[in-house]
Amino acid sequence: MTNHRPVAPVLPLATEQLALRPIGLDSVQIIGGVWSEWQRQNREVTTPHSFGWLESDGTIDNLRRLDPAGTVIAERRGPWFTDSDLYKALEGLAWDLGREASGELSSLIAEIAGIIERAQLADGYVNSFVQAGLDVRWDNLVKSHELYCIGHLIQAGIAHRRATGRTELFDVAVKAADVVVADFGDLRRSDTDGHEEIEMALVEIYRETGNHDYLAVAQQLVDIRGHKTLDTDKFGDSPYYQDATPVREETTVVGHAVRAVYLLAGVVDLYLETGEQALLDAALAQWESMTATKTYLTGAIGSRFIGEAFGDSYELPPDLAYGETCATIGNIMLSWRLLLATGESRFADAIERALYNLFAASTAVDRKGFFYNNPAQRRTALAPAPTDTRPSRADAPGTRPAWFECACCPPNVMRMVASLASYLSTSTDGAIQLHQYMPTAIDTEVDGIRVRLTVETEYPVRGTVSVTIVEAAGTQWGLDFRIPDWAEGASLSVNGTPAALAISALGYARLVRAWLPGDVVTLELPIEPRLTVVHPSVDAVRGAVAIERGPVVYAFESVDQAPGVDLNHVEILRDADIAADPLQDLLGQPSVVLRVRGRARRDAAWAGTGWKRLSDAPGSDGEYVDLVAIPYALWANRGPSVMRIFVPLAV
Amino acid sequence: MTNHRPVAPVLPLATEQLALRPIGLDSVQIIGGVWSEWQRQNREVTTPHSFGWLESDGTIDNLRRLDPAGTVIAERRGPWFTDSDLYKALEGLAWDLGREASGELSSLIAEIAGIIERAQLADGYVNSFVQAGLDVRWDNLVKSHELYCIGHLIQAGIAHRRATGRTELFDVAVKAADVVVADFGDLRRSDTDGHEEIEMALVEIYRETGNHDYLAVAQQLVDIRGHKTLDTDKFGDSPYYQDATPVREETTVVGHAVRAVYLLAGVVDLYLETGEQALLDAALAQWESMTATKTYLTGAIGSRFIGEAFGDSYELPPDLAYGETCATIGNIMLSWRLLLATGESRFADAIERALYNLFAASTAVDRKGFFYNNPAQRRTALAPAPTDTRPSRADAPGTRPAWFECACCPPNVMRMVASLASYLSTSTDGAIQLHQYMPTAIDTEVDGIRVRLTVETEYPVRGTVSVTIVEAAGTQWGLDFRIPDWAEGASLSVNGTPAALAISALGYARLVRAWLPGDVVTLELPIEPRLTVVHPSVDAVRGAVAIERGPVVYAFESVDQAPGVDLNHVEILRDADIAADPLQDLLGQPSVVLRVRGRARRDAAWAGTGWKRLSDAPGSDGEYVDLVAIPYALWANRGPSVMRIFVPLAV
Repeated sequence: MTNHRPVAPVLPLATEQLALRPIGLDSVQIIGGVWSEWQRQNREVTTPHSFGWLESDGTIDNLRRLDPAGTVIAERRGPWFTDSDLYKALEGLAWDLGREASGELSSLIAEIAGIIERAQLADGYVNSFVQAGLDVRWDNLVKSHELYCIGHLIQAGIAHRRATGRTELFDVAVKAADVVVADFGDLRRSDTDGHEEIEMALVEIYRETGNHDYLAVAQQLVDIRGHKTLDTDKFGDSPYYQDATPVREETTVVGHAVRAVYLLAGVVDLYLETGEQALLDAALAQWESMTATKTYLTGAIGSRFIGEAFGDSYELPPDLAYGETCATIGNIMLSWRLLLATGESRFADAIERALYNLFAASTAVDRKGFFYNNPAQRRTALAPAPTDTRPSRADAPGTRPAWFECACCPPNVMRMVASLASYLSTSTDGAIQLHQYMPTAIDTEVDGIRVRLTVETEYPVRGTVSVTIVEAAGTQWGLDFRIPDWAEGASLSVNGTPAALAISALGYARLVRAWLPGDVVTLELPIEPRLTVVHPSVDAVRGAVAIERGPVVYAFESVDQAPGVDLNHVEILRDADIAADPLQDLLGQPSVVLRVRGRARRDAAWAGTGWKRLSDAPGSDGEYVDLVAIPYALWANRGPSVMRIFVPLAV
Repeated sequence: MTNHRPVAPVLPLATEQLALRPIGLDSVQIIGGVWSEWQRQNREVTTPHSFGWLESDGTIDNLRRLDPAGTVIAERRGPWFTDSDLYKALEGLAWDLGREASGELSSLIAEIAGIIERAQLADGYVNSFVQAGLDVRWDNLVKSHELYCIGHLIQAGIAHRRATGRTELFDVAVKAADVVVADFGDLRRSDTDGHEEIEMALVEIYRETGNHDYLAVAQQLVDIRGHKTLDTDKFGDSPYYQDATPVREETTVVGHAVRAVYLLAGVVDLYLETGEQALLDAALAQWESMTATKTYLTGAIGSRFIGEAFGDSYELPPDLAYGETCATIGNIMLSWRLLLATGESRFADAIERALYNLFAASTAVDRKGFFYNNPAQRRTALAPAPTDTRPSRADAPGTRPAWFECACCPPNVMRMVASLASYLSTSTDGAIQLHQYMPTAIDTEVDGIRVRLTVETEYPVRGTVSVTIVEAAGTQWGLDFRIPDWAEGASLSVNGTPAALAISALGYARLVRAWLPGDVVTLELPIEPRLTVVHPSVDAVRGAVAIERGPVVYAFESVDQAPGVDLNHVEILRDADIAADPLQDLLGQPSVVLRVRGRARRDAAWAGTGWKRLSDAPGSDGEYVDLVAIPYALWANRGPSVMRIFVPLAV
C-alpha cells in the first residue's frame, strides 16, 4: 500500500514541502447526505444535461470537424476557449468514474478522447479555434486561451488515468504537453497565456510522469508573467492578467479573479515541488489579503462585473456583486494546495465557507441550472431564466440559466463535485486529518497500517460528528479534527467519555490513541445561529447583520416572508433572538429554517426624495415582523424572488 | 421683439403646454465667475483639443473619404457612431458662436458642413459607417446608431442657424431629416433606432421649419418603441433599449441611462407640441422615480457598469458607481423640458445639483481631461490617465483621460457649456424667472416691454445674489427667484428693505413691482455646510454622511488630509461642527474648504479577518483628526488620490 498513488487532483512528488498528504477519492467515499446526493445527480442529471449542451452548442463538433478523415461539419462555433469547457466536463466524468465505475461513461470518454486525438496535430498541438483558421497558432496568446485549453486537457487526461488506469485521454494530454515544451521550453518563446491554468497542469503532469521538462516550463511561465509582456487588449490592462507585477512581488490579488487564483494555485504547486519559499510567501500574502479584504461572507470573490475582477480591499457591495462560480472553485483549489503545504485549518475553513455557500448556491437543486455570477442581494424579482437558450454570463435572470454562451462554470462544478471526496481528509506520519465533515467511509493507512473509519453526521444541520473506527491494528495514531473558526465551545468524547479538546496552533484537535475497531469519537460543534457583521471598511453593509449557523450563511428570500413584508424595507432588532424551526425538508434537503424578530421600516417620510439633512432623517417606526431565513445555498429555487443576506440593524 | 426667436436648444411652437418660455443665450450673458471662465476655456482650450482628437482619430476623415470627388483617404475608423461625436462638437461650436462671434470658428463650421454635404447622398442619407460598406443602410438599427447620428446632425444644424442665421449646416440637416421622413414616415418602416436621440431632433426641426412630417415621425418612433421590435444583441435585452414596455406604461427609468433620459426628453418635447397628457404623466413618473431612488447625491445616474444602466431602486453604491457624464447631461436636458412644461422648481433643483457636482466634476479644471464614467468613491490612488492615448470608457485611471475611444462625453460637455446661458432663466406673462444664479446680464422683455437686469453673485461660494434693474419702463411685473430645496431660511430685500418671501407652490418667491432702473433686489440663500444622509434603502452608505454646502457636494480627497490620515479608515463625529476656511483660490476657482472633526478608526482588531460575530465587533477607538473636504467637482485635479464623499458616522 505504501506505493499507492491516491486518486486525487493534486499529488505532490516532493515530500519536503508537504505538511499533509492527500487521501484520494478511491479511499474516501461520501456515503450519505446532500453531497452524496449531489454526486448522484452530477452523474445522472448534470452529465447528460451538460453533454447535451456541449453537443447542441457545437463544442464537440468544433473538434470533430478537424478529423482529417472526417467530413467537414458545420462552422466552428462559440468563443475561443470552448475546448476547455469540454475538457473540464471530461475531467468531471473521469473523477466520477474513480468514484463509481460506469461502462456508459467510460465509453463516452473513450469516444471523445478519439475525437480529440483525431483533431490533434502530429506534434501534439490541438485547438479548435486556431485549427479552424480563426487565429494563428500561439500568435495571440493574450486572448487565444490556447495554453489554457491545453492545461484543461492535461488535467482531464491525468484525472482519467488516475481514476481508471486508462491512458487514451492521457496519451493525448502528454502529446499536448509535449508541444508546449517543444515550442515554449528553454525560453524558445518568452510569452505566456492570457489566462492562467497551464501552470497547475504542467506541474501535475510532471508529477504524473516524472518528466522535469514540464516542471521547467511551468516555472518559466510563472517567471515570465508580471513583466507586462502580454499585449493588452479590450479585456483590460496588465493587472487584469496579473502581468503588471511579478507574482513574487505582488501583495494582494488583482485583476480577473479566476486568472488570479488559478495562477496562485499553480504557484503553490511549483513551491510544493521546488521548495522556493518566495513562491509560498507570495501565495500566502495574496491569499491572506484576499480572504480578509476581498471575500464576501459567502465565499464569493471578484466583486467587479467589469473584468470579472477583484476590486479594491473592502469593495464588496452585495447589490453589485459579481462573484463568479469558477473563481470560488479556483479558490478551493488554491486553498487546498495551501492546506497541503501548511497544514493550517484556516485553508480548510475557507474551503468550507466556499463549499456550503457560494459553491452550493451556484447550482439549482435540480442540478440543471447554474449561476455564472452569483447575486449576493436582489432588490427586484427578475424573470426566470430560460431553459432552452443560453444567456451571456452578464445576464441577470431571476433563477439559474441552464447553460451559458461562456460555459466555463457548469463543467467546473461537475469536476469539483465528482472529485469532492479528495478534498475532505489527509494524512501525516502517525495521524489522519478530518477537514470537512460529511458522511464518509475512509479506507486508508497510517504508518503503513490499514485503517478504516466511518464518519456519521447530519452536519451542518446538526453539529454532531461521530467517527467509528472500523478497522485498526491497535497501534497508536492520531485523529485530527478541524475546529472551524466559527466554532466556540466544541467538545470531544471517546466511547461516550468526554475527552480533552486542545486546539493546536494549526487549528486541529488531536486525539491520539491505540485505536481499536468499534471505538467511537464524537465531536460536538456548536451551531447555534449567530449574527455576523463584516469589517467596517466594507461600506456597503455597514450597520447591517447577516445570520450564520455553523458554516451556513443564511439569506432572506421573499417567497418565505409573511404577506406584506418587503425585504427592501426591513430591519433586525439588535437584541433579537434567532429561533430555529424543527428540522425540515426544504427543496429535497434537510434544512433548518430560522426566524428573527425585525421591523418593517416605514420609509414614507422619504417619499419623493433620496436625501435629507441628517437632522431631518426619520428613525425606524415600523411594525414588528418575524423575518424568515433559509440557507443562502437554497435561494432562487422557487421562482423569481427578492433576496438579501445582510439586513440593517434597527437604530 | 415679440416675434424674436430666442437662441436656445428647445423652442416649443405650441404655447398651450408651455408653463415657462425660454430666454435664449442671445439675451442672457454669463459675465463672470467660474462658468464664464469655463465658456472661455471651452472655446480656447477644449475646442482645439477636441477637434485635434476628432482629426487624429479619423472622425472627420471618416466623412471626408466619402467625397465623390475626393481621393479616398485611409480606412474608416472608430465605432459605428463617430459621426455623432463630430456633430455634437459642431453643435457646441454653433452655440458658442451665438454667445460670441468668431471668424475662425465660423470658417471651421463652414468647412466641416461642406465635408458633410459632400458625403451626403442625394436623398439626404449620411452615415460614415454604412457608407464605408461596413453595414447596410437601416439594416441593423439596433446597433448602427444611424438615426442617432442624424439626430445629432439635425440638432447641430438647428443650433447653427439659430445662433448665426447661417444655413449651410442646417440645409444638410434638413436633407437628412427628409430622408428619415421619406424612409420611415407613415409607417413605411416599423422599426426604430437602438439609441434614442432622433425624437428630440425631429421635434426640434419641426419647430424650426413648421413641417409637421417631422413631428409625425417623432411620434411614430416614440409609439413603436416598447414593443420589443428591436433585435436584441450583445448589448443587452429589450429593457436596455427601453423596448420592453411602451413609454406611456413605464413607471421608472430602465436600461441604458443615456438612452432612457434622451427618450424621455423627446417624449416631453412631443407632449409640449401635441398636449398628450399621457406622455407628460409618463415622463413625470419616470423622472420622479429616477430622482428619488436612482440618482446619486452628485446628480449621477445609471449606477451599473454593465449596460451603462440604471439599476434597481436604491442600487447606488459609491464604490462601483458608473455615472456616465452624458447621462447627467441628458438629465439636464430632460429636466429643462419638464421645467418648461410645469414651471416647478424641482426640475431646476435637479439641474443645479447636476451642474455643480457631476457635470462640473466630469471635466478637469484645465478643460482638457474628462471622466466618461464618474467615480463616486476611490479607495486606491490609481495611476494618472495618459494624455496621448485614449482609453476605452471602462478604464479607470486616477485622473481624467484626454479623450475616449467612445468619444460621446467630451463633445456633449462642449455643447452644454456653450449653451448654458439658455438654461438659466425664463419668462411668463408678467414675470421673469431666475432658475440658476450666476453673474449674468439679461436683456429681454416682459409683456412686450424691454427689460434689462444684471445679476451679481459669487454663488455658490457665497449665498448673496443681487439683481439690479438696468432698464425697465415702470410697468408692474414680477421677478421669480427659485428657492432651492436645500435652502432653509432664505430672505429677500428690495433696495435694502426686507421684503416678504413667500414660496409659491411651484417653488419660487415672486416679487411684483413697478420696477425702475436702479432697483436692487438681494436674495440671501443660507449656505451653511450641512451633513446629509441618504435614503436608508441605499445600503451602500448606511450610517454614513456627506457634507453639502449650498448646492455643492463635498468630497474628502487624500491630497488634502494630514499625514497619516487614511480616508478608508475614518469616521465623522455625529455632533461635529463643520468649519469653513476663508474663501481661497483652489485650482483657479474661488472655493470654500471645509474641516470636520473625525476620528481615525483603528481597524487592527480586524487584522486578518473580514467578519466577526456582532458581539465581538470592536467599537471605534481611534485618534481624533480634522478631515478636510473640497467641492467634489474639483477632485482628481492634483494627481492620483483616494476620495470619498460619504464617511461613516462614529458609533
